[in-house]
Amino acid sequence: MTRQLHLNAFLMNTGHHEASWRLPESDPYAHVDLAHYVRLARIAERGTFDSLFLADGPQLWNNLAQRPAGALEPITLLTALATATEHIGLIATASTSYNSPYNLARRFATLDHLSGGRAGWNIVTTAGAEAARNFGLDAEPAHAERYARAAEFLDVALKLWDSWEDDTVVADKAAGVWGDDAKIHPPRHRGRYFSVEGALNVPRTPQGYPLLVQAGSSEDGKRFAARYAEAVFTAQQTIEDARAFYADLKARTVAASRDADHIKVLPGIVPVIGSTEAEALANERILEDHIVHTHGVDRLERLLQLAPGTLELDGPLPSDLPPESAVEGAKSRYTLVVGLARRERLTVRQLIGRLGGGRGHLTFAGTPEQVADTIGLWFESGAADGFNIMPAVLPSGLETFVDHVVPILRARGLLRTEYGDARRTLRERYGLPRPANQHVIAPALV
Amino acid sequence: MTRQLHLNAFLMNTGHHEASWRLPESDPYAHVDLAHYVRLARIAERGTFDSLFLADGPQLWNNLAQRPAGALEPITLLTALATATEHIGLIATASTSYNSPYNLARRFATLDHLSGGRAGWNIVTTAGAEAARNFGLDAEPAHAERYARAAEFLDVALKLWDSWEDDTVVADKAAGVWGDDAKIHPPRHRGRYFSVEGALNVPRTPQGYPLLVQAGSSEDGKRFAARYAEAVFTAQQTIEDARAFYADLKARTVAASRDADHIKVLPGIVPVIGSTEAEALANERILEDHIVHTHGVDRLERLLQLAPGTLELDGPLPSDLPPESAVEGAKSRYTLVVGLARRERLTVRQLIGRLGGGRGHLTFAGTPEQVADTIGLWFESGAADGFNIMPAVLPSGLETFVDHVVPILRARGLLRTEYGDARRTLRERYGLPRPANQHVIAPALV
Repeated sequence: MTRQLHLNAFLMNTGHHEASWRLPESDPYAHVDLAHYVRLARIAERGTFDSLFLADGPQLWNNLAQRPAGALEPITLLTALATATEHIGLIATASTSYNSPYNLARRFATLDHLSGGRAGWNIVTTAGAEAARNFGLDAEPAHAERYARAAEFLDVALKLWDSWEDDTVVADKAAGVWGDDAKIHPPRHRGRYFSVEGALNVPRTPQGYPLLVQAGSSEDGKRFAARYAEAVFTAQQTIEDARAFYADLKARTVAASRDADHIKVLPGIVPVIGSTEAEALANERILEDHIVHTHGVDRLERLLQLAPGTLELDGPLPSDLPPESAVEGAKSRYTLVVGLARRERLTVRQLIGRLGGGRGHLTFAGTPEQVADTIGLWFESGAADGFNIMPAVLPSGLETFVDHVVPILRARGLLRTEYGDARRTLRERYGLPRPANQHVIAPALV
Repeated sequence: MTRQLHLNAFLMNTGHHEASWRLPESDPYAHVDLAHYVRLARIAERGTFDSLFLADGPQLWNNLAQRPAGALEPITLLTALATATEHIGLIATASTSYNSPYNLARRFATLDHLSGGRAGWNIVTTAGAEAARNFGLDAEPAHAERYARAAEFLDVALKLWDSWEDDTVVADKAAGVWGDDAKIHPPRHRGRYFSVEGALNVPRTPQGYPLLVQAGSSEDGKRFAARYAEAVFTAQQTIEDARAFYADLKARTVAASRDADHIKVLPGIVPVIGSTEAEALANERILEDHIVHTHGVDRLERLLQLAPGTLELDGPLPSDLPPESAVEGAKSRYTLVVGLARRERLTVRQLIGRLGGGRGHLTFAGTPEQVADTIGLWFESGAADGFNIMPAVLPSGLETFVDHVVPILRARGLLRTEYGDARRTLRERYGLPRPANQHVIAPALV
C-alpha cells in the first residue's frame, strides 16, 4: 500500500482566522457549545482524519474585545466528543508546568479507557507570566527550566502508566481474588521536581499510554521531541524549511535510539478554499478585511516582548530585535514571525494580515486541487508525514476540506477511504506499536 | 405541592458491598467500562433521581486481591455521562488538598457548560498518607490544616467562577467587539495557601458554579458545610442520630447567615431489597457469605490506626481506642464505626459483616414497602431532605430500587413522576437559587 497521509483536525472556536467570529455564519458563543464541537468532530470523522486536536493555555488572554476568549478544558471536552464519535483520535493539550503528574496521568488514562484507546497528549511547557501567576508563581520559569521539569514529568507519567501490568486483574470470583498485587509497580519516584510514591489508581489503558505529541520547535523542544514525541505539530512557511526540520527531527530521533518512523511530523496548514483561485483569494480577502489592526499590534508587541506603542502599523519591524536565545517565551514562534517579516519585507500591517489566518502557520488560498497538490508535494518530498489542518473558519472550512480536498487525496491513494475494523487505537492509526510495559521483560528474553 | 424528596445515586463499580464483584452477575472489569456507567446513569434517570455521584481519592489502596481497585477520574467520567443523559445532576468528588484552584475550577466550569448546568462538586480534603505521598508530601497534612486550605480553596474558586460577569460577551460583529473587558474581574488573590492572579479562561456557567456538596461530619467538616455546602452526604445509623445531625447542621447554617433550606441533608442508605422480608434477608446473607474476612481485618486496622495483627476476628474492639480528637484521618467515620461496634456489642467479624455493605452507612434489608416506609419516616420526621442511595450490587440493586421503591414514593407524592421542563439545572432540582455574581451589585441596591 502507498505510504498513507496522516491528517489531524486542529479545532478552535469559530476558526483559526482571528476575524472568523465576525462572519455572518459564525456563532460567537461557539467556544462553550458542545454541539459546535460535536459537529466538528463528526465532520472530521467523515473525512477519516486520524485525530482531532485542541490547543490550550491555563490563562485568560487580555483584550476580550478582539475575539472569543476562554476555552473549555480540553481533556474534559474531548471526553464528551469521545462519546459522539467512534474512530477518530482525541488529542488534548496539557501543561507539564502547571499540573501534577499523578492527576494528569490519571485523566489521560481515563480518557484512553473511555475512548477505547483514542487519547493523545500534546505536551506543552506553557510560556508566559500570565499562566505562572495563576499557579502561585510571580514570574514565568526559565525556558530550560520548564523543559527540565517536562522531562521529569514524562518520566514519572510513564512510570505511573506502567504501574499496572496489563494482566494485573485476575478476577477469580470463586477464590475471592480480584487482582494480583505482585503486578503493581509503584513509581517510588523522588526527583528534582516531583515525588510520587504510589501506583496509579487506573489500570493500564488500551494504548498503554496516550499518544505523545509535541509542538515546540526550539532547541529544547526538538531535543524533547526526539526523546519522547510520537507526533509533532510544527509551523513551517516554506517547503525548504519544512524539509530541513523534518530531516533534523528524524535524525535526532534516530540519535536518541528510536525508529525514525515512530515520530510523525505534521506541519500546520490553513487552507482557504474556493472553487476557483480567484474565489479562494476573495475568501481570504473577506477575512483580512475583518481584522481589527490595533488588536494585532498589541499581540505582536507582546510576542516580540516590546513595550506597548513601539510598533508602527505601516513601518517595518525594528531592526534591533534580540536573537531567539535571549527570549524566554515561545521561542520557535518568535523566530518564525521575525523570519517571515524579514524574508518578505512586510510592514507591521502586512505581517498582522499574514498572521491573522494561522498565527505563523502556512496559509494557503487555492482550489481543492491546488490544496491537494501542495499537501501531496510536501508529503512526497520529505517535508511531512501528514498535516495539521487548521481551517480559517469553522465549521465551514473543515466541511469544505472534507467534501472537496479529501476525495482528491483518496483518489490519489494517499488517504484511507474508511476506517475499517483492523486498526482501533490512535497509536495504531499513526502506525506506531503499542508500547511494552517497562516492568515486563519481553518473553523472548526471559 | 408536598415537600419533595431528593434522591442521589451513589455509583461505585459493581456495588457498595465489598463482595458484590464476586456474584455471578457482576462484571469484574466494570470499573473501567463506560457502558456500565452509562447503564447506571440511565437507570437513575428513569427513576427521576436528582443526581448521581462518584466518590474519589487520588491513590491506589493496597490489597488488590480483595476487590476491584482503581477508578476512572470522576469529572472525566461524568462528562461522558453528561452526553448519555439529559436531566440528571452529575456530582464529582475532587480534593482541595491535591488540586490547584485554577485547574479544578476550570474543569468544573467545563462540566457545567457541557452538561447544561448539571455539575456538582463533592468537596473533600482527602485523608491518608498514601495520597499525600503521591503529591510530593511525606505525610498527611493535619486535619485542621486540610480544612483551612479547603476554605481558602473555596474562596479562590468562587472568585474564579465569578471572574466573568454573566453578560461579558457582547458579540458585536459589526463593530468588531466580542467581549467587554470591564466585566472581567481577576481574583488577584494572595493567600496563605494560594496565589491566583488572573480571571478564569471559561465564561460564567449555567449554574454560576457547580452545586457545592460536602460529606465530612467532623467538627471541622460541619463548620465547613455550614459555610459553603448546598448538599451534605452523611452516614447515620439511627434515626435519632440523623435527627440530631440534621438539626445541628441546619442551625449552624442559619448561624452562618444562610437559609436553612439552602443546605440539603442526604443520609446514605444501602437498601437490600426482596419481594418478602425473608427474601431480602437471604439476599443480604448471600453477600455476607462472599466476604473474605482477612481483608476486612486489614482495612479495619488501618481505619482505627492499629498495628497489623492487633484485632482478633472473634473478639471485640480494644477497649482503649483513642478519642476522635486524637485521630488525623477520616474522623467522623472513625467515630461512627467505633460507636456501632460498642452500641451493638459486635465482634470484629460481625462488625466487618455490617461494614461490608455500606462502610458505615445504614444498611437496610426489606421489601420495597419497608424501604419506602423507612425513607418516608426519616424524611418526614426531621432526619433527612433526601437520600444518598447506595445499592449493594450494581446495576441490579439500582434497577430494583427504581422499579419497585420509586413507584411507591411517587404514589405517596414524595417524588416527581417526570423531570418536566421548568427546572433544568442541578441547583434548581435541589430547590436552590442561582448564586449572584459577587462583583455585581443587585439592581435594587444600585
